[in-house]
Amino acid sequence: MTNLTALIAELDGLRIEENDKIVLQKSRDFYWYSPVLKRQLDHVTGDIVVSPRNEDELIRVLKACYRHDVPVTPRGTGTGNYGQAMPLSGGVVLSLADMNDIGEIAPGKVTCGPGVICADLDKATRAHSNQEMRMHPSTYHTATVGGFIAGGSGGVGSISWGGLRDFGNIIRLRVVTMEEDPRVLDLSGEDLHKVTHAYGTNGIITEIELPLAPAYDWVDLIAVFDSFDAAARYGNMLARQDGILTKLITVVAAPCPYDYFKRHQKYLRPGQHVVLVMVAPQSYDAFKAFSARTGAEIVFDASLEADLKGIPPVFELAWNHTTLRALRVDPAWTYLQSLYPFPNQIELAGRMDRMFPGEMISHLEFVRFDGDITCFGLPLVRFTTEERLNDIIDLHTENGCPIFNPHRYTLEEGGMKQTDEIQLAFKREADPKGLLNPGKMIAWDDPDYDFTSGKVWLFKGLQQAS
Amino acid sequence: MTNLTALIAELDGLRIEENDKIVLQKSRDFYWYSPVLKRQLDHVTGDIVVSPRNEDELIRVLKACYRHDVPVTPRGTGTGNYGQAMPLSGGVVLSLADMNDIGEIAPGKVTCGPGVICADLDKATRAHSNQEMRMHPSTYHTATVGGFIAGGSGGVGSISWGGLRDFGNIIRLRVVTMEEDPRVLDLSGEDLHKVTHAYGTNGIITEIELPLAPAYDWVDLIAVFDSFDAAARYGNMLARQDGILTKLITVVAAPCPYDYFKRHQKYLRPGQHVVLVMVAPQSYDAFKAFSARTGAEIVFDASLEADLKGIPPVFELAWNHTTLRALRVDPAWTYLQSLYPFPNQIELAGRMDRMFPGEMISHLEFVRFDGDITCFGLPLVRFTTEERLNDIIDLHTENGCPIFNPHRYTLEEGGMKQTDEIQLAFKREADPKGLLNPGKMIAWDDPDYDFTSGKVWLFKGLQQAS
Repeated sequence: MTNLTALIAELDGLRIEENDKIVLQKSRDFYWYSPVLKRQLDHVTGDIVVSPRNEDELIRVLKACYRHDVPVTPRGTGTGNYGQAMPLSGGVVLSLADMNDIGEIAPGKVTCGPGVICADLDKATRAHSNQEMRMHPSTYHTATVGGFIAGGSGGVGSISWGGLRDFGNIIRLRVVTMEEDPRVLDLSGEDLHKVTHAYGTNGIITEIELPLAPAYDWVDLIAVFDSFDAAARYGNMLARQDGILTKLITVVAAPCPYDYFKRHQKYLRPGQHVVLVMVAPQSYDAFKAFSARTGAEIVFDASLEADLKGIPPVFELAWNHTTLRALRVDPAWTYLQSLYPFPNQIELAGRMDRMFPGEMISHLEFVRFDGDITCFGLPLVRFTTEERLNDIIDLHTENGCPIFNPHRYTLEEGGMKQTDEIQLAFKREADPKGLLNPGKMIAWDDPDYDFTSGKVWLFKGLQQAS
Repeated sequence: MTNLTALIAELDGLRIEENDKIVLQKSRDFYWYSPVLKRQLDHVTGDIVVSPRNEDELIRVLKACYRHDVPVTPRGTGTGNYGQAMPLSGGVVLSLADMNDIGEIAPGKVTCGPGVICADLDKATRAHSNQEMRMHPSTYHTATVGGFIAGGSGGVGSISWGGLRDFGNIIRLRVVTMEEDPRVLDLSGEDLHKVTHAYGTNGIITEIELPLAPAYDWVDLIAVFDSFDAAARYGNMLARQDGILTKLITVVAAPCPYDYFKRHQKYLRPGQHVVLVMVAPQSYDAFKAFSARTGAEIVFDASLEADLKGIPPVFELAWNHTTLRALRVDPAWTYLQSLYPFPNQIELAGRMDRMFPGEMISHLEFVRFDGDITCFGLPLVRFTTEERLNDIIDLHTENGCPIFNPHRYTLEEGGMKQTDEIQLAFKREADPKGLLNPGKMIAWDDPDYDFTSGKVWLFKGLQQAS
């Protein structure tokens, strides 16, 4: 590629990786949780990886790529599951991992670069003033803050704070545009929706101001139940206890806990359904009293364990780590992401649980959602064919449980199945050549696309398997 | 009173007040917000005030009173409105104001004596580690923590944490019983319900362990609206913003704000309905963006005021301070306390607002309640007769809005209109002679009382007006 050679020459002095194997490795995320995305995207790779260390270097990269018409796909550490960070048309993989400065820490907030690992940010804010991120993905120890914001939606902590899309869960994002002369914009308030969860399709995040919550020594607990319904009801009731401060309430149906939570297996029996809980120490007594009243049996209480060596935190059994643990034991599992709308979440979750015996294992994550307590589902699904997977998705939708399809690499298909006019308008302004993370925003490539068609959209610019 | 003389002799060395005028003053609370209670209780006074400085002194008092069959009515600073702390049968007024030690402050919790003023507790916990009480009454600067727990239900902060009755909003209460040999009990978990909001009828609280929330420099704001419905809808929508951290969301209908919020009058126009908000600084931008989206007009923003001298915090316009400010200008006002149950709170609040034109001014306090966002009402009511007041109460009840009647001095009539079996059982055990705060628990004095009778219960032991 002539323009690539010229580009590399122009980026002299920047950190550039050209080794094919490393570039391929840096072109992946956890898309392989989906057998569909695995088939479609397995061959995808960028041409080079560029790792700017600061905003000035980043601007140099963007200017040069703009001039040479080279696509740019930003990434953190590639822990997403929707192919968010995969360079469908090749070009530059823009690693932001080195832009990991931690700036001012103040009461209730922190400023940092996009490349900071979530756990590292919390380490700094805890040491400074006993504060931590309001929410983080289960990939806390590996995911970057910028990747979470650009490619995630919520996670551990969403039971208190809702999702990243909610007003107030991001304070400010500094964004560089992909123009002949890149602009540097500070977005806050209503403007944040332009780039939050946009997969970096319309600007590169270079600085993040986040609200912080108080940090506590959260206590990990596991309650067990004989039926999925009992576990779901307990989780729901616990989530509705306004005075009990929790950070995680996860329901995982049998046989997943005993079969796949290997490090916790000694605490469990086959056939048990579990509720995973993180509770603040000051709410521990209340949690125990509530659990006793509801007849829950607590089989694991990290505060009582003499030795936790080798035992992962419970959030690493939750959110998409549940899927990961199942996949590690049995690669035939994949998963879905669903919403059980309030106020029917328990009835709906139970109905879906009974619908696919042996083929689906229910998994609920309780959250605040638009002011109500309800739950997302991340059920394990036994993959047979894409047709059957789509049938299962349709059965969820028909029963009133929207699916955020993790077997699609576009923003729209993995999300709300409609054009996000705000993000599209901002892309027109900030990325006129359409070079940022190509193929992820249908509305850009195919403005007349009919989202009700039921067809899978295929990006024409998707690089061919060799 | 012979036994009183003997009692006083026995309590030698303790702080005892015998001056009639001071005893009368220390025998009142803010019962006079209710013209009904004012008529019934205006003459009520204790015989002496005893102010123990520690638990040992307190035990001396209780032992002596038990021996001499002298009633004991505990109080903090007497800021309740239900006659909670009024000694209906005379005897000892037990002031706990001097038991105001602040003990250990740790992440998420604090231990203190019952007599600590709420604002003083927060001052200490803020200085120690930027923490504060999860919730406090609008009488923050005068009310004691013990009085709040024994006689209150929630307040500023309940929008985040629910009420005091909820699991987790009190960690531990140390209680001394009224027996020949008083026992000292540490109650936690399920046992807390025995003495929380029991008006001190079944034990004296000597130590309190409370959860703490992070302290922020809350920003006071006032939004104005042309209609009550618009204000109520805005308050409800704001309360449902999971990512915007607020401590107060109060709706007050016209003409109250302009007519009675004298210190804020310069910011207001006649006829304006207001929403009072306390928002955390890290949520300020999001609050502004949300308010702009909803078309709210912010007329007061404490963070932009050059000089706040003489301007009280907005929480001193809210909860029962709203009533206080109206009463100061026009003593014909009294109030009610109601619940607008989820999910119909806005419809119900609007319906009640339209039902009593000129006779009622709506006032909503948004809270978390059993896991949902809804609102209490503390409407101002123009008092004419007790009959009419009861009619207004009945119209609320008939329309599905329960009333916690602030014109009754008993726990049951001011609360759930039924026997609290847990509190009654604990009183049988902890106060066998029935000497603690007599006349406040119907179930004790009149076990066969029919709460559905619709009659006002009159305590036979209520001292006669002289």
